[in-house]
Amino acid sequence: MTAEIICVGTELLLGDIVNTNAQFLSRELAELGISVLHQHVIGDNPARLEELVRQAKSRSDLLIFSGGLGPTEDDLTKETVAAAFEDTLHFDEAEWQKILDFFARTNRRPTPNNRKQAMVPTRGCKLENAHGTAPGAWFEDGGCAAALMPGVPREMKAMWAEQVRPRLLAKQNCTIHSKTLRVLGGESSIASKAAALFDGENPTAAIYCKTGESEIRVTARAADAAAAERLCDEKLAQFREVLGPNAYDVDVPGLEYTVVRLLVENHLTAATAESCTGGLVAEKLTNVPGSSEVFGFGFVTYAEAAKTRLLGVSPELIEQYNVVSAPVAVAMARGALEVSGADLAIGITGIAGPGGALPDKPVGTVYLAGENRRTGAGWVQRLELGGYHDRAIIRTRAALYALDLFRRMALGLAPENAVPTTAAEPAEHYVF
Amino acid sequence: MTAEIICVGTELLLGDIVNTNAQFLSRELAELGISVLHQHVIGDNPARLEELVRQAKSRSDLLIFSGGLGPTEDDLTKETVAAAFEDTLHFDEAEWQKILDFFARTNRRPTPNNRKQAMVPTRGCKLENAHGTAPGAWFEDGGCAAALMPGVPREMKAMWAEQVRPRLLAKQNCTIHSKTLRVLGGESSIASKAAALFDGENPTAAIYCKTGESEIRVTARAADAAAAERLCDEKLAQFREVLGPNAYDVDVPGLEYTVVRLLVENHLTAATAESCTGGLVAEKLTNVPGSSEVFGFGFVTYAEAAKTRLLGVSPELIEQYNVVSAPVAVAMARGALEVSGADLAIGITGIAGPGGALPDKPVGTVYLAGENRRTGAGWVQRLELGGYHDRAIIRTRAALYALDLFRRMALGLAPENAVPTTAAEPAEHYVF
Repeated sequence: MTAEIICVGTELLLGDIVNTNAQFLSRELAELGISVLHQHVIGDNPARLEELVRQAKSRSDLLIFSGGLGPTEDDLTKETVAAAFEDTLHFDEAEWQKILDFFARTNRRPTPNNRKQAMVPTRGCKLENAHGTAPGAWFEDGGCAAALMPGVPREMKAMWAEQVRPRLLAKQNCTIHSKTLRVLGGESSIASKAAALFDGENPTAAIYCKTGESEIRVTARAADAAAAERLCDEKLAQFREVLGPNAYDVDVPGLEYTVVRLLVENHLTAATAESCTGGLVAEKLTNVPGSSEVFGFGFVTYAEAAKTRLLGVSPELIEQYNVVSAPVAVAMARGALEVSGADLAIGITGIAGPGGALPDKPVGTVYLAGENRRTGAGWVQRLELGGYHDRAIIRTRAALYALDLFRRMALGLAPENAVPTTAAEPAEHYVF
Repeated sequence: MTAEIICVGTELLLGDIVNTNAQFLSRELAELGISVLHQHVIGDNPARLEELVRQAKSRSDLLIFSGGLGPTEDDLTKETVAAAFEDTLHFDEAEWQKILDFFARTNRRPTPNNRKQAMVPTRGCKLENAHGTAPGAWFEDGGCAAALMPGVPREMKAMWAEQVRPRLLAKQNCTIHSKTLRVLGGESSIASKAAALFDGENPTAAIYCKTGESEIRVTARAADAAAAERLCDEKLAQFREVLGPNAYDVDVPGLEYTVVRLLVENHLTAATAESCTGGLVAEKLTNVPGSSEVFGFGFVTYAEAAKTRLLGVSPELIEQYNVVSAPVAVAMARGALEVSGADLAIGITGIAGPGGALPDKPVGTVYLAGENRRTGAGWVQRLELGGYHDRAIIRTRAALYALDLFRRMALGLAPENAVPTTAAEPAEHYVF
């Protein structure tokens, strides 16, 4: 089976946004064993779109569209594809009611143009949009199928998973199952440890790089779902054995979800004291539904006075070791633990840049400390994140290390490259 | 002038990487006033590539390629395009010597295939590659030009800037300038107020939707840079007149940059007390370089005990009005103002969902309060953000309102739909 991906949107042609939809769809189609021959991006021009659709329909089995379903007069994708697939559109009362409800809920009023969005295929069928106003559309003609989805990535991904992927699976005779292992660390360090595991036709394994971590996606085909899942699990176990505790979870959106789950499971509460990350760790934790069970107190102590007044870090300690130092990170974590009454706390102080570098502390130098009330154990580590020359990346990577420190404390694992600290030990013992 | 971008690479069709080259090239071409009609991604298949090149050449003035210049036998892009442009390739001794030198420097040995990379156009010309082994190629035929560049983004960007962009500028007789106005509110509310301003050929204006706000990009062409900029400024002034204070800034990455600039300009400091946004407002502010000048204290008071202990919100007030209420938001803002000593403070409490809804307060109900020490003025507003059914969107929109409240307080503008509060007034006066 061959496919072409057609993304409709002037903002793509103008370079205002990166086309992440094309990557997502390519990956998903590859996983279903469907060969993508061509990706296209085209604007809201009916004549050019019509020419493209006719060509693509004549040479490929499947056309996957994203974008072009908006309410403005320019958005003629649905009409154009319907014509090429010998279909027509008709007004759908139920979809119109959904649009009216959505506008009412968001305190807005629909325009007459919004009625266009309630037009659905006559011979084909509509694709429900669980996350937005515009339904998608499915057309079939002459051995070729077309799926039209919204351009907004969140809406497109949901419609793909709920409406399009199941239809494509039904056309095939096997089941496909995927699981995604998340691993801290870059692609090259993972590839060097686990290279052999990426060979093999079934299951397949592919690696995708994220900031400070990687995803390994394992995909298996089998006659039934249980067998496919078993194949995935066997492969994942092999990866986990080679990669050790850096492989932190399966099928989660991010490390903060793993941390919240581990805190809940272990009846632990957590607090944060952040300087250079400015609330990013707290923000990530509290973005996980249910995090209020385990997280109550976050301190964004950006100023020295805030570290002193809110966390009890002594001005002398700051004076002696500098505000970006291991002793100050430790004092921040201890202060957060004390004021909040939480079981675990982290403290982060560093230089996110672009300014603020010190002679022995370049931009990207970050001190991260963790304290565990239950065990009395503490840890502090120095991170060097400046190679990326990017404030946002330095902050994101520092937050990832902080979340991993919570994870390791919750699991009773020692953090890598960290120095143990105890309250009895004087601060000068962990200056580095 | 019209253009098509053609990216060659199987890794793009498999979804292994995002196509950032297409975005970069689209933006650069848009800025030169060249309309990109189509972006293509295609694999190393000579027959399909040939068909595409002939079509694109017949309808567009310029074809910009990235990828396909590698040494393997599959890489036939250069040969295919040469044929379509009635040109031939010949071996270039100087390029071959550069390739040999490069391999020697990196302690590797070239393969016979690498000789392919030293083949350059005969009627057209080569494009020097300052950062890699493979030269690019430039072809012209029948009023159409083609530029072939490497797929590695670093090499491609350098070749674009040094070789391709100057050639294209030389073909034009004018200068292009763009400015982007950022406006709070959705596309439809802006379009309804300013519809007429989106007409016109020079300058052009286009709108792009973001969460809770929109960008209006104005692009002008003129004989010189000053005239083009003047045309942009005139158009922006018209938009600002129609849209009022919701149009908040020009050419900034986001509202937090405007807030930090206004705080610096007005010698104001700010503090945050966040519950449902969990540190998002602090995180956004501190992501702005230089924000430490104006932001020192952030409180993430996710638990009731944190609101009481850190901000002095009385347990009785919480008991009486509920933790998600206008009086608690006001008390949070006042507590943050007092503890931090800042000039401005905001307090946010709400229900981000999916759980936690109350009978009269559905998911998405957020109370936002602001306090201004200098004027003694306070404000509180109730936001209904639940229509989006998405925790992340509710938080992002609530944070945007909070940033806008800082902006309005810094500018002395009353927030829309907010109730004024004073310390003298009892809390029951602003229960809603």
